[in-house]
Amino acid sequence: MSLICVGSMAYDAIETPFGKKDRIVGGSAVYVAYAASNFVKPVNLVSIIGNDFEESEINSLEARGVSFEGVERVKDKKSFFWSGRYHLDMNTRDTLITDLNVLADFNPVIPEHFQDSEFLMLGNLHPATQISVIRQMKTRPRLIAMDTMNYWISSAIEDLKLVLTMVDVLMVNDTEARELTGEFSLVKAARVIMQMGPRFLIIKKGEHGALLFHGNEVFFAPALPLEEVFDPTGAGDTFAGGFMGHLSRTKDISYQNLKTAIIVGSAMASFCVEKFGPERLRELNKTEIDDRIRQFIDLVNFDIALV
Amino acid sequence: MSLICVGSMAYDAIETPFGKKDRIVGGSAVYVAYAASNFVKPVNLVSIIGNDFEESEINSLEARGVSFEGVERVKDKKSFFWSGRYHLDMNTRDTLITDLNVLADFNPVIPEHFQDSEFLMLGNLHPATQISVIRQMKTRPRLIAMDTMNYWISSAIEDLKLVLTMVDVLMVNDTEARELTGEFSLVKAARVIMQMGPRFLIIKKGEHGALLFHGNEVFFAPALPLEEVFDPTGAGDTFAGGFMGHLSRTKDISYQNLKTAIIVGSAMASFCVEKFGPERLRELNKTEIDDRIRQFIDLVNFDIALV
Repeated sequence: MSLICVGSMAYDAIETPFGKKDRIVGGSAVYVAYAASNFVKPVNLVSIIGNDFEESEINSLEARGVSFEGVERVKDKKSFFWSGRYHLDMNTRDTLITDLNVLADFNPVIPEHFQDSEFLMLGNLHPATQISVIRQMKTRPRLIAMDTMNYWISSAIEDLKLVLTMVDVLMVNDTEARELTGEFSLVKAARVIMQMGPRFLIIKKGEHGALLFHGNEVFFAPALPLEEVFDPTGAGDTFAGGFMGHLSRTKDISYQNLKTAIIVGSAMASFCVEKFGPERLRELNKTEIDDRIRQFIDLVNFDIALV
Repeated sequence: MSLICVGSMAYDAIETPFGKKDRIVGGSAVYVAYAASNFVKPVNLVSIIGNDFEESEINSLEARGVSFEGVERVKDKKSFFWSGRYHLDMNTRDTLITDLNVLADFNPVIPEHFQDSEFLMLGNLHPATQISVIRQMKTRPRLIAMDTMNYWISSAIEDLKLVLTMVDVLMVNDTEARELTGEFSLVKAARVIMQMGPRFLIIKKGEHGALLFHGNEVFFAPALPLEEVFDPTGAGDTFAGGFMGHLSRTKDISYQNLKTAIIVGSAMASFCVEKFGPERLRELNKTEIDDRIRQFIDLVNFDIALV
């Protein structure tokens, strides 16, 4: 059992109403790896880094069972850099700087060693890159999940439509689901998206939780009401990491188990927002994760007798 | 066992992206009564109507076990009239007309016959009016719940603070909870509001569900993801009616049962938005309600083994 996770590794500069970090490790693959490594080992990373990526970060992830065999290291360029500022409500942010750097040349190669992985998480990348990864897999993974963003919906819709026919799970936020379909109702949007390919659709609504659609079924996982959302950066990727980590650990890709995986993802995301970047994820232990999942059970658990 | 419900009875003019109604019955007490009468009889209405209030509306409610003994009828004035227009996202609306008419003179009198009611729902009215109702009750009801709105927070805060010390449950929306406390975090706002008096706090988030706070506990009920929200008018009052109806029927005011009551309220609200005004509530039967509650169970039910 193992999980391939393809995505960016980056340095971020983040400004929230609570403070500022000029340089902190980030990128979708980093968050997915931190979250998933609580549940499955190895996490097979496929990414690209520059000469500024610190060894201590690599060591910290390797110590958690993350394999760097699929991470290309470019000697004469810098890592992907992103800088953003959050508004007071934490639901919206302005991107201040996007320096693609090494990411501009990212042409992922799946190591032979990773070919037996049963689970594949495609982070937010150009859909053509996502297609290239899927095509490199000699045996189709049991479950392929992908993220995307509004930028690809407007700039690479044909490639995006193609990759959608090749995956099992799409994860998008509510705005992206609406943009992809032109439907305001998320229920209608979900139906259209599932007709595009994915059997399962996860619509992330940030502090308002996440919806899982499958056929005519729908499941809802709330976000944990928190005293303070300190920094939302990476919460979506952490959600994906918890989700895929749970599936990889249990090897059960039934709708019933995907529901559970969404709760695990939501629990992991609720940790992520408590500190800057992946800081909170670094220090997490299993007891804390179990306690948090229990909080989710309490949050939605009720007894009822019908009328 | 019976429920008193104090609030407005009105005619509304409603415009949504799906259509327009120039004149349809409305008002908080009407929605509460329609929803609660599925669970408890009698629903003891305390309200005021003008000479334009149609007998057919009264008959329709009376047939459902709603008592009009506490409804004052004013011969030379018209009923409260409200007109509003919803925006495309259905979360915001513009009030076009508010004609208080008879509501300007509303001075509710609790009939002797209603004195034994164990449950009291105070709809959105001037907090001084809410206080007057509570003071008229010779025996304090087992559970008093109240609604309020931003208008009273800004114009009658001292009366509002007083009535908050006299009730068990406050229901507000997220914006109102923030305005009342100056706290953006709903968890922090909840703590402040419970220190003002109510043991239970319900924060309604519209299409994003509702939170129930009690001590250090929190429970979340989602809204049902719907294909179409046709008209949100009255959804909050319908929620309150389902909530109080369930409590009145079961006579159990434990935290555990309040959670269930929130699910029932959410189920009732999900019907309300399907048609104009209270049209959908009028035609509802118990089988439909049971089916809808089952949908809520499916929506949040999951199995989990801890990590």
